[in-house]
Amino acid sequence: MKERFIVIGGDAAGMSAASKARRENSKLEIIVLEKGGWASYAACGLPYYLKGNVKNIEDLIAIQPEIFRKERNIDLRLNHEVTRINPEKKIIVAQSPQGEIELTYHKLLISTGAKAVKPKIKGIDSHGVFFLRDIASAIKIKEYLAERAPKSVLIVGGGYIGLEMAEAFYSLGMSVQIVELLPHLLNSFGLEIAEVVEKYIKNYVRLHLGRRVNKIREIDTGKLSVYVSTEQDKQQEDIDTEMLLLATGIVPEVILAREAGIKLGPSGAIVTDEFGETNMPDIYAVGDCAEVTSIVTNQNTYIPLALTANRNGRAVGSTIGGKKTHLSPVAGTAVVKVFQLEVATTGLMDIEVAQKYGFNPIKNTIDSRSRAGYFPGSKPIKISLMADRNTKKLLGCSMVGEEGVAKRIDIVATALYSKLTAEQLENLDLAYAPPFSPVWDPVLTAAKVLNGKLEGKH
Amino acid sequence: MKERFIVIGGDAAGMSAASKARRENSKLEIIVLEKGGWASYAACGLPYYLKGNVKNIEDLIAIQPEIFRKERNIDLRLNHEVTRINPEKKIIVAQSPQGEIELTYHKLLISTGAKAVKPKIKGIDSHGVFFLRDIASAIKIKEYLAERAPKSVLIVGGGYIGLEMAEAFYSLGMSVQIVELLPHLLNSFGLEIAEVVEKYIKNYVRLHLGRRVNKIREIDTGKLSVYVSTEQDKQQEDIDTEMLLLATGIVPEVILAREAGIKLGPSGAIVTDEFGETNMPDIYAVGDCAEVTSIVTNQNTYIPLALTANRNGRAVGSTIGGKKTHLSPVAGTAVVKVFQLEVATTGLMDIEVAQKYGFNPIKNTIDSRSRAGYFPGSKPIKISLMADRNTKKLLGCSMVGEEGVAKRIDIVATALYSKLTAEQLENLDLAYAPPFSPVWDPVLTAAKVLNGKLEGKH
Repeated sequence: MKERFIVIGGDAAGMSAASKARRENSKLEIIVLEKGGWASYAACGLPYYLKGNVKNIEDLIAIQPEIFRKERNIDLRLNHEVTRINPEKKIIVAQSPQGEIELTYHKLLISTGAKAVKPKIKGIDSHGVFFLRDIASAIKIKEYLAERAPKSVLIVGGGYIGLEMAEAFYSLGMSVQIVELLPHLLNSFGLEIAEVVEKYIKNYVRLHLGRRVNKIREIDTGKLSVYVSTEQDKQQEDIDTEMLLLATGIVPEVILAREAGIKLGPSGAIVTDEFGETNMPDIYAVGDCAEVTSIVTNQNTYIPLALTANRNGRAVGSTIGGKKTHLSPVAGTAVVKVFQLEVATTGLMDIEVAQKYGFNPIKNTIDSRSRAGYFPGSKPIKISLMADRNTKKLLGCSMVGEEGVAKRIDIVATALYSKLTAEQLENLDLAYAPPFSPVWDPVLTAAKVLNGKLEGKH
Repeated sequence: MKERFIVIGGDAAGMSAASKARRENSKLEIIVLEKGGWASYAACGLPYYLKGNVKNIEDLIAIQPEIFRKERNIDLRLNHEVTRINPEKKIIVAQSPQGEIELTYHKLLISTGAKAVKPKIKGIDSHGVFFLRDIASAIKIKEYLAERAPKSVLIVGGGYIGLEMAEAFYSLGMSVQIVELLPHLLNSFGLEIAEVVEKYIKNYVRLHLGRRVNKIREIDTGKLSVYVSTEQDKQQEDIDTEMLLLATGIVPEVILAREAGIKLGPSGAIVTDEFGETNMPDIYAVGDCAEVTSIVTNQNTYIPLALTANRNGRAVGSTIGGKKTHLSPVAGTAVVKVFQLEVATTGLMDIEVAQKYGFNPIKNTIDSRSRAGYFPGSKPIKISLMADRNTKKLLGCSMVGEEGVAKRIDIVATALYSKLTAEQLENLDLAYAPPFSPVWDPVLTAAKVLNGKLEGKH
C-alpha cells in the first residue's frame, strides 16, 4: 500500500502542503478533504469582490480543483467534512455527500483555518446580520446587496476586515458606521497611527469607539435597530441600519484537534514543533488553526496571516514529502488599505505586551513625507518605531500615509528578521529619488530619532 | 585660539559635516568655503526644476545660508574657491571676491564633490550644448529653453540623468533622442531590466544604443548637426537637433587633493580610513569626491550617492566634533523614474565584476505583479536577483515596473546589509494585501526561484 497523506482543509495552507508534498514525492497518495464547496481561494480578496473591484467570485480561485486533480495527482474532495480524528488507529471519519466514510492515513495535516468570532449579542441571528469569512458568506452578502440595495450598514469591529468593508460599502453609496469595543481602530498598530486613521476615516464613516453592541432588533423587513453603549452601559444609543456586518475577529478552528487530544497553546491555537508536527505523532497542523514562532520574541504566538499559511503549508508539505523543512518565524507584517490610506505594521507595537516578554521598550513617532519636500504630490507619512532599551534591537514598527507605506514597512520587517538595532536601521542604504522619498527615507529618520533617544540624547 | 574646522565645498556632504560638528561641539570654529554661489541644495531635484515640477530654483535649497550662519554659527562663505592645500603648514589658500586669502586649520574636510565628464568631442563647446551638474548649469538650460524654445534635443548618455532629462524634455513637448555608447541604457542594472526600460522608452524617445558622438557642428543659430556612429565608425548618421545635453557621467573632483599629495584610489576618488580621514593627518574627505566601502565586497569603491554624502558627512562632522563615528558601508541602492516606470537597483548586478571580487555569481530573473493577480490595476514587475553560489549570500538586485518598485528594492538593500542568503530572503515575512502585492511578494518569488537554482533543482 502506498503511503497516504490526508489534508483536512483545502485552503491556502492545505493546498500548499498538498502541492509541495507532491513535488517532493511522486509516489505519495494525497487526499484533501474540504468541507466547503471551494478550495484554494483568496479570502483576502473577498472585500474587493463585494466592493466590485473583483467582478467574479471565480477570479478569487487561485488554482482550479481540476488542476489539483489532473495535473498534480491530488485527490481533492469538496463537501467532505471531517468529523473525527482517531490518532491511535490513524483513521479519520468524514461526512461526504455519499454518507460517512473512514480513511486511514500515514501522515495527517490539520489545516482547518479559523472561524469568525460570533459575539454573544441578543438578536445576532436576525435577518440582515452578516459575517464575512468565506466565499459562501460573501455570496450571501452580495445577494442581500443585490436584492435589498440597503442604504446603510453598521460594521461591528474596527480591524482589517471592518475597515476594508467600510471602504467597500461606502463605494457602493451606503452610509457606513463602525462600532469598536476598544478605544481605537487598528488597536495593535499603536495609538499614534490609529489616531491618524480615525481622523481620516471620519470623512467617510461615523465612528463609535469604546462602544459595544448589546442588542439587535428587527424593527421591520430589512430594518434593524442596534442598541450600542459603553462597556458600563453608558451613552446608550439606538442606531437604525438596514444591514449589520460582524467583523469582530477570528479564532482558530480547533474542534477536531481538541477532541483528538491534540495540544493547544494559551492562544487556543494548535501547538507544533519547528516542523509543524503536533504532540500526536504524524499529525501536523499549519495555517490559521496553528500557532507560529514570533521572530521578535522567539515564543509561540497566534498570528494568522495568508503568507504564513502558504509558506508554512509548503514547508510541512516538503517535510511530509521527504525533505525536512523548518517552518518560518513570523514578524506579523500586515498592511491594510483604508480608502486612500495605507496602514502597515510589523513586529510588536504594544508596550505592555513587550514588557510581558521581558523587553524594556521605547517607542517614538515621527512625521515625514513620501517624496522630497520640494517635489509636488508629496504626502505625509507617520511612523512609530519601537526598540528594546537593553539590547537596542528593534521590536516593531507601524506607519500610515496616502503613499509609499505598503511596501516601506517591509524594510523594518527585513530588519526584524535580521535582528538589527535602531542604529543599524539608521545606517541602511535605502533608495532615494525625489519622486519616491526624501534623501533620508522616513524609516531612516524614524531610526535616527529613536536611536538618539536610546543614546539618551533627548 | 579656538580649534578651527575648515570645510571645502558647501553641498550635502560638507554642510552635513559642518552642522553635525557644531551640534557635537559648540566651541569649534567652523568655516565652509564654497566656490559657487549656492550651498546645501538638492542636485537630484534639478531635472524636476527643468521639467517644471519644481517651480523655483530656491525650492531646491534645503537650508538657507543665513540659517547656517545665524542659527548654527557656521561661517559659510560663498564664492570662495580653494586653490591650494598645504598639509605641512595646515594652511589653505582661497580665491575670494576680495582677493586671495590664507587660512590655517586644525581639521580640514574635502567635500568637493564630483564634476561632469567632459568627453573629447569636436565642437563640444558649441552654442546649444549643455551639461547638467549644478544650479548654475541648470539655470543656463532653463534660460535657453525660455529664449529659444527648442523643439528637439539629443541627450548623450543613458544613465540616471540622461533618462530623467529625457522625461523632462519630452514633457516640455520636445522631440528627444538618446545616444548611449554602451549597448544598453542603465547598463549596471543588468541586461534583463535594461531591455524593459528600452522597450518602454521607445514610445517616447528615439534610442541610438552602442553609438558614440564624434562631432558636433553648429549649422545655423540654434541648430546643431551631430555626427553619430558605432565605435568602429560604422552606421554613421548625422542627427539634426536644436539642443544637446551631455550626461555622460561624473568623476570625482580631486584636483586639490591630488596636488596636496592626498592618496587616490584606483577609481580616482580619495581614499580614506573608516572615519573618513585621508593619508594626510587631520585631512578628511567625504561625499562624491571620496571612495566608500561596499557592503557587498567590503572593498573600497566609488559609488557617489546623495544619501551617502549626507550620512557620511554627518559621521565625519561627528568625529571632528569629538565623537568618533564610523562611516557607513554602501549598498549602492538607487532608483530612477523613467516616465511612468520605476527602475531600481542595489548591490552588485554585473556578473563579471562579481567574479573579479572572487564571487561565484548566479543570477535569475522573474516576472511578477504589483498587486494580487485578480486585483484591477496590477502592473508587471520584473526582478533580477543575484547571489553567490559558494556562500548562498545575496549580491544584488534590480527591478523595474510601473508601480511598487521604488521602495521594494529596499527589502533587498536591507537584506544585503544583513548579509542574508537567498533562502533567508525567501523566508521574510513581508506585507500582503491585494491592492499592494501578491501573497508571495515579487521579491519572495525571485528569492524562491533563485534559491531553487542554488539548490541545483533547475
